[in-house]
Amino acid sequence: MNFFSPKLRYSFIAGLLLSSPSFAQINALNVEPSSWWAGMQNSQLQLLVYGENISQFEVKLINAAGVNLVKFDASQSQHHLFIDLDLTQARPQTLIFGLYDKDQLVQQIEYPILARQKDAQHRQGFNNKDVIYLITPDRFVNGNPNNDNHPDMLEEANRKDKDGRHGGDILGIRKALPYLKDLGVTQLWINPLLENNQGRYSYHGYSTTNFYKIDPRFGSNAEYKSLVEEASRFGIGVIKDVVVNHMGSGHHWMTGDNSLGFPTSTWINGQSNWLENNKNITYTSHRRTTVQDPYAAAIDTAEFENGWFTDTMPDLNQRDPYLATYLIQNSIWWVEYAGLSGIREDTYSYADKAFLTKWSQAIMAEYPHFNIVGEEWSANPITVSYWQAGKINQDGYQSYSPSMMDFPLYEKIISSLNEKEDWGSGLITLYEMLANDVVYANPTQLVLFEGNHDTNRLFSLLNQDITLYKMAMAYVLTSNRIPQIFYGTEVLMTSPTKDRNDGAVRADFPGGWQGDEVNVFDKQNMSAQQLDALSFTKTLLQYRQQSTAISAGTLKHFAPKNGVYVQFRQTDDEILMIIYNKNEQPLELDLQRFNQIIQPSNKAKDILTSDTFSLGSALKLTQKGVTILSITQQSSKG
Amino acid sequence: MNFFSPKLRYSFIAGLLLSSPSFAQINALNVEPSSWWAGMQNSQLQLLVYGENISQFEVKLINAAGVNLVKFDASQSQHHLFIDLDLTQARPQTLIFGLYDKDQLVQQIEYPILARQKDAQHRQGFNNKDVIYLITPDRFVNGNPNNDNHPDMLEEANRKDKDGRHGGDILGIRKALPYLKDLGVTQLWINPLLENNQGRYSYHGYSTTNFYKIDPRFGSNAEYKSLVEEASRFGIGVIKDVVVNHMGSGHHWMTGDNSLGFPTSTWINGQSNWLENNKNITYTSHRRTTVQDPYAAAIDTAEFENGWFTDTMPDLNQRDPYLATYLIQNSIWWVEYAGLSGIREDTYSYADKAFLTKWSQAIMAEYPHFNIVGEEWSANPITVSYWQAGKINQDGYQSYSPSMMDFPLYEKIISSLNEKEDWGSGLITLYEMLANDVVYANPTQLVLFEGNHDTNRLFSLLNQDITLYKMAMAYVLTSNRIPQIFYGTEVLMTSPTKDRNDGAVRADFPGGWQGDEVNVFDKQNMSAQQLDALSFTKTLLQYRQQSTAISAGTLKHFAPKNGVYVQFRQTDDEILMIIYNKNEQPLELDLQRFNQIIQPSNKAKDILTSDTFSLGSALKLTQKGVTILSITQQSSKG
Repeated sequence: MNFFSPKLRYSFIAGLLLSSPSFAQINALNVEPSSWWAGMQNSQLQLLVYGENISQFEVKLINAAGVNLVKFDASQSQHHLFIDLDLTQARPQTLIFGLYDKDQLVQQIEYPILARQKDAQHRQGFNNKDVIYLITPDRFVNGNPNNDNHPDMLEEANRKDKDGRHGGDILGIRKALPYLKDLGVTQLWINPLLENNQGRYSYHGYSTTNFYKIDPRFGSNAEYKSLVEEASRFGIGVIKDVVVNHMGSGHHWMTGDNSLGFPTSTWINGQSNWLENNKNITYTSHRRTTVQDPYAAAIDTAEFENGWFTDTMPDLNQRDPYLATYLIQNSIWWVEYAGLSGIREDTYSYADKAFLTKWSQAIMAEYPHFNIVGEEWSANPITVSYWQAGKINQDGYQSYSPSMMDFPLYEKIISSLNEKEDWGSGLITLYEMLANDVVYANPTQLVLFEGNHDTNRLFSLLNQDITLYKMAMAYVLTSNRIPQIFYGTEVLMTSPTKDRNDGAVRADFPGGWQGDEVNVFDKQNMSAQQLDALSFTKTLLQYRQQSTAISAGTLKHFAPKNGVYVQFRQTDDEILMIIYNKNEQPLELDLQRFNQIIQPSNKAKDILTSDTFSLGSALKLTQKGVTILSITQQSSKG
Repeated sequence: MNFFSPKLRYSFIAGLLLSSPSFAQINALNVEPSSWWAGMQNSQLQLLVYGENISQFEVKLINAAGVNLVKFDASQSQHHLFIDLDLTQARPQTLIFGLYDKDQLVQQIEYPILARQKDAQHRQGFNNKDVIYLITPDRFVNGNPNNDNHPDMLEEANRKDKDGRHGGDILGIRKALPYLKDLGVTQLWINPLLENNQGRYSYHGYSTTNFYKIDPRFGSNAEYKSLVEEASRFGIGVIKDVVVNHMGSGHHWMTGDNSLGFPTSTWINGQSNWLENNKNITYTSHRRTTVQDPYAAAIDTAEFENGWFTDTMPDLNQRDPYLATYLIQNSIWWVEYAGLSGIREDTYSYADKAFLTKWSQAIMAEYPHFNIVGEEWSANPITVSYWQAGKINQDGYQSYSPSMMDFPLYEKIISSLNEKEDWGSGLITLYEMLANDVVYANPTQLVLFEGNHDTNRLFSLLNQDITLYKMAMAYVLTSNRIPQIFYGTEVLMTSPTKDRNDGAVRADFPGGWQGDEVNVFDKQNMSAQQLDALSFTKTLLQYRQQSTAISAGTLKHFAPKNGVYVQFRQTDDEILMIIYNKNEQPLELDLQRFNQIIQPSNKAKDILTSDTFSLGSALKLTQKGVTILSITQQSSKG
């Protein structure tokens, strides 16, 4: 077996030559996870302990109240040990175990078993009452300019480089909480905050180099935990961006002077090839149907699932049971440690299918009311639906992730608004996409977004048409989905519209840096259009916080005719009528068509203008745009 | 109740004024169906008997061996009676029933209960071994110029009018049987042959004016039955094109001097409006998702389902139980009478959903091995899959039609061949469409076609590129589907390519008319390219007749790379490798990628060129096109 790099293997042999019957203590010894909790649903815990030549020791428990050592495995690597503990009867305590050379204790290791926060297992995940606000933390607010650089971190801040680090951080997000509360968002999905000690492109966070450590340029683990606590006081939850498919090439498993190599011989895909001087790396094909297609060739499935994302993003091999456990525990550790209300899982289908089932099942078993949303970037609802919990797939595949990102509907929002209204184009395509909801186990649990860090900016995609922008925002925020908006959309941030423009899309939030000319936080130098967009978004966000029709109502929609598309959201108490009108010229909308739901005597309140009126038999639509009416059978106060 | 036209109501009143205690015999008295069979699975039979003022009589059986009169209903119309018979114990016989004025027999009606053909109920429907050939009968072969016009029929033949009648007929199809047999087709789907006594556009056959009578310009019922018998001797089955959604406005229920009006007050949708001087007719919206969409408004569903197809195609109301039974019995009558091997059901989703379940269930219960293919013209597999037997739909809807036309895959064949090969365009889109097969209950039971009477001509859609044409034909004819080709595709018939061009698409088959300059039957004046296409098609059709890999093999496909898409069809005995290559320049295809299925030592036979060779490790593809290799592990004879 060739599971060490040539260099490491040499040091192993050297170690053997120099070894004496009793070993010296290991200086740099680490345990992951660094702590755990008593009273978890899953009482089994697997520790990864690593230090130079640690595999030559035996492990025994020294001081343990209700903890059993199930087994330890030193056979996977010279420098790594896996220790399986049974915590079924464990009390909170500092567990002590020892490394033994035969029967002689060489070293003691203290390991904290903590008490859980009250009701930790009953935490409520994000749901239809929420609005998620996506933040790219390096680009949002620079709360602490002193942590922009860090001596241990390779890449330095350079705000002039659109692909470089700009200095945004956790403290910045914390400082923005009053703004976010006032805006009306209730959940923050923050792009990954874990250490990304990469030479380039470290700002986006998708190249994890330490699974248990917040990047020091964003802050510390304690700061992250504290942000979640503080946000909670603002009625805002935090969703962690988790990446199980790949990691960063700068991880100490891969490289570095202190590298002890991989914990097992199959930790990443293509491990042996990579160890042989980085040769014959297979890259992912990005052909996501290959893991669902009943006719797919095995070689194509493997290429998609096991190929590397890029040279700097090696592909984790979740079929390795030790890695699988490592990743599952890592996800649960962060939920429990930081007090999270959700996970957004990156590049969902790229990871091993069977692992994804175990991973999502383990998390949801631990937190039954939690939520996980997966990213499957496909315009095809069939492809996306495969991964949602509750779907009975043709091949028997099961998932436990309650939610998926609704890319198909997102793409139709953009295209349908841009297209000319015609028999087969325009709003009809948005209308018809919703009929595909039948393929989802739980369509209302999908997260619908107006954009994210990978898509070009909404306002730009809609040709900077503020009316179309409002229609898109209204659609997302009144949909029978969990809505998600992207930082800066509320103030019309722009980007190019062709191909990818990551650096531009993830531009700095105006006001997030001292001296910013435009400042959203005190509305300095904002254009009238920006103020209009902000006010519109805020009105909708505030309205939906008390609207059961939006968060829990049924949906009924009427096929677009003459450029007008009407949706109703409805509970016993509330009727919301949302009218999307693409006509530039005034139009009378005959309301008789909707008499299944509304009557001429009903009272309406326009939630955008606060006008109230009796419906009558027709509604004058004076110009292109969205109208949102709250309709009641009794006469309104006004 | 206003179920008679003003004129008919007048004659009813007049009749009352003139009536005497005993009635005269009815001169023009009709019964539909005109005969039935003993020993059917469903032993219940409902007769529609019509004649002037017939509703004033009572019905009694006079001579009946094992037949019970269950009930009769004279309450629906002045001129129509519905008689329900129980044939559970019936023997073949001439049944006699009487119309009685109180106890006085006024008129006897003889009704034939026939003996069934041996094994009629076990007839084999079209299946994966077959190739279906679609014929537009007016445009195929004019076998009998003497029936081009008929004194009772409104429209006269005019071959110069692309939208007029050209004179093709049943005898023409019969004369073409040797050609069709030689070509290698095994099923004929013939566009509707029932009487279409309409002033215009009667040639296409979709405006039925008599559900029990072949249009005299095509031939007679007896000629049709005889065609089926004769075709069967050539190993060819016949599939009837059935229309249950609508009929022709020239039907005697609607119009004409001898019209007795509608059998019930709800026979067609919009019946009362139409009777009031043809006012306020609703036309179908063609929005087919409205019958599947969980959020659709009832008014939209009704508009789609109940709207008229055109002014000349009134919408039948299948929710009327008498009409439902009429249509179900009509379909079964033709299967039994003519000895059919399948039904193609037009505008499938436009008919009432619940009726379609009953209709398909009744036919399949009568003939368990039969086949029905429905037309749902949508590019969305979700929409199409809703209607196939065996699908567990989200709303509980069930169908019993074993097959549907595969419009989604058809459209991708055309677009993928025309598109430039790129990351997200070209053959990859065809590859990815197949992954959607998971939404179908039985994807292999779908009918895949290269074109039909409603689509522009294949060769034209592929820019008259013979190589792309061959790729499309190979795809359809080696797919894991039931393939269907359109008359004339084998000799490269052309059409415009934008919008609809019905008259041009359904052009006369060259050689079908005496004096045709180009004549396919004796290859007169055919171009080299036409001869090449014909030979290619024939080779494939002949090959697939003995290929279990095509008719019953598994499908495995490899994601297109570098403009090459490879599929394998495979049984224990046969491996078929189909290579679609869009490169103009020569290319070496590395065969190692396929070593899950084939080995370098395997022997291959090119079924298009008959060349045989050892596979080796790479395959030279010298030019753009399709290559089909039959691969065996043993060395071949050649």
